[in-house]
Amino acid sequence: MPDANRQIVLDQLPQGDRLTAQHFRLTQGERPSPGEGEVLLRTRYISLDAANRAWMQGATYRSALNAGQVMAGGSLSEVVESNASHLAPGDLVFADTGWQDYAVLPAKRLAKLPALEPVTHLLSIYGIAGLTAYFGLLECGKPKAGETVVVSAAAGAVGSIVGQIAKIKGCRVVGVAGGEAKGRWLTDDLGFDAAVDYKAGDLRRQLKEACPDGIDVYFDNTGGPVFETCLFAMNNFGRIACCGAVSQYDGAAPPHGPRGIPGLIVTKRLTLRGFVVMDFEAQRERALKDLAGWVADGRLKVQEDVIEGLENTPAALVGLLAGENRGKRMVKVR
Amino acid sequence: MPDANRQIVLDQLPQGDRLTAQHFRLTQGERPSPGEGEVLLRTRYISLDAANRAWMQGATYRSALNAGQVMAGGSLSEVVESNASHLAPGDLVFADTGWQDYAVLPAKRLAKLPALEPVTHLLSIYGIAGLTAYFGLLECGKPKAGETVVVSAAAGAVGSIVGQIAKIKGCRVVGVAGGEAKGRWLTDDLGFDAAVDYKAGDLRRQLKEACPDGIDVYFDNTGGPVFETCLFAMNNFGRIACCGAVSQYDGAAPPHGPRGIPGLIVTKRLTLRGFVVMDFEAQRERALKDLAGWVADGRLKVQEDVIEGLENTPAALVGLLAGENRGKRMVKVR
Repeated sequence: MPDANRQIVLDQLPQGDRLTAQHFRLTQGERPSPGEGEVLLRTRYISLDAANRAWMQGATYRSALNAGQVMAGGSLSEVVESNASHLAPGDLVFADTGWQDYAVLPAKRLAKLPALEPVTHLLSIYGIAGLTAYFGLLECGKPKAGETVVVSAAAGAVGSIVGQIAKIKGCRVVGVAGGEAKGRWLTDDLGFDAAVDYKAGDLRRQLKEACPDGIDVYFDNTGGPVFETCLFAMNNFGRIACCGAVSQYDGAAPPHGPRGIPGLIVTKRLTLRGFVVMDFEAQRERALKDLAGWVADGRLKVQEDVIEGLENTPAALVGLLAGENRGKRMVKVR
Repeated sequence: MPDANRQIVLDQLPQGDRLTAQHFRLTQGERPSPGEGEVLLRTRYISLDAANRAWMQGATYRSALNAGQVMAGGSLSEVVESNASHLAPGDLVFADTGWQDYAVLPAKRLAKLPALEPVTHLLSIYGIAGLTAYFGLLECGKPKAGETVVVSAAAGAVGSIVGQIAKIKGCRVVGVAGGEAKGRWLTDDLGFDAAVDYKAGDLRRQLKEACPDGIDVYFDNTGGPVFETCLFAMNNFGRIACCGAVSQYDGAAPPHGPRGIPGLIVTKRLTLRGFVVMDFEAQRERALKDLAGWVADGRLKVQEDVIEGLENTPAALVGLLAGENRGKRMVKVR
């Protein structure tokens, strides 16, 4: 086992411009040793998320990232050495290790993950993506059978699961995604009722055609113009689950928000609710049970997009922000 | 009893400009006669509301107003003739009579109001203003004792009640109002903890000083820059009750909405909820009982602003939109 620890450092913070692979550099560090109550983790799969980019813009639910540090990010990692009784070598955990081969972390915040195959499902359907889709849709969107649910970034890790859960709940489901191929995948493979291509123009008309009865639940992964267009198409007493704003992470902060706020919130009696998956920790077991059941009976298809090699992580994130992935993107480190 | 029926007609719709008294004209109509199932009502007090202006902008929870029609509006009216068994001459009702001396309406949507003195309280604390404050704050804002509640248009009909109910619920209460005199009234007479003058500039700093622990509940009557400033000062898991957007009714529609949406909704896990008082009809009796109790024991002060004369209704609305009223503005017709 080599002692080297490859690390990807966030060399420069993007200054209101788009993130590129050149904002990062690969370095070599020492393999750290765990102290009391700590574990040494070896990274197996790095989770790529639009949130990685959002963290560069300033403090969110975590403090802002700084240049010169190992890039932050979650990963599926294996315990190599443990100074904690509840974790043993070989155990898998999800941890904020950052983009590197090895990390030492306090053990007390880490929980052993169940052994299941493929292990990548621990990062997709049984990881943050699956739980985000589950809680955001069901707890914030509160869809009822027969209602129309629209989800943006529908071909992404979260959106592709949101739409399928909404179908399971008996809703009409419309996905907003970029490009015809993604749209076809949503309808033909995942069972969405319709797809709308935000790159094809006249989103308002497209949405109107796809949602003849208006929108009852909008699951927002993008913010920006898609958010605004959906807002104007909402039905009275509709709900908007605010999950992320990927359209606004990569580049300068938008000068303004969507039109119609707060006017349309009032007249249509909308509820907008923002959430982060950690808020629903107490209901995690129930969610995992539901998700596993749907996967087992074939009603929920898991789509993963695995890139090989730690050194390719920056480009994989840049590509994710450009929408090149389908389903959950992750990097296989070893 | 004269047969004449003075009517104020909305002569022209404002075209993206400010409303003036010249947009209206006074005409004389015939006193109508009630048909089967109808009642003839005589207007006693016309309720003035920012919503009157919003209705001119397009369809809301009611259809848009048209030029040439009697101006729409609610009033406290007295039954003069009745062709319905549940209403008798002399009974008081709240009805959408429009701005005129007499109106004929179907009786089935009208409910007899309790006889109480002063009758004006049926338009203020026991009317739409009081119920809007009650339900918006308690059902949408969900304040907990010790939390900080901010309300905009705090010296208005709804805002002045919102702040007092929040005090009764044990909150720290900050009112946003225009001008020092209104602020002093809020703190000295109504018991608000602090007031912030949006006309005095640097609202962000003022708000920060008045809310050292951030904002947990924001009751929004204004939209616009006050909304945006409060949004940035919200605490995690804060709630925004979206009641109205008076800053945006009188003039051209704003080109954009507030910055920070949906980004801040996500990272702060905010809930924004729009409402209209009619949505809470089923809980009306409980609300009236609570409000009456607080008025009776002196914890809730009722402020009314009564203008005399039907002919002065247009100017009274224009003045309300400019923020010249304190508490509930109404016009005494007879």
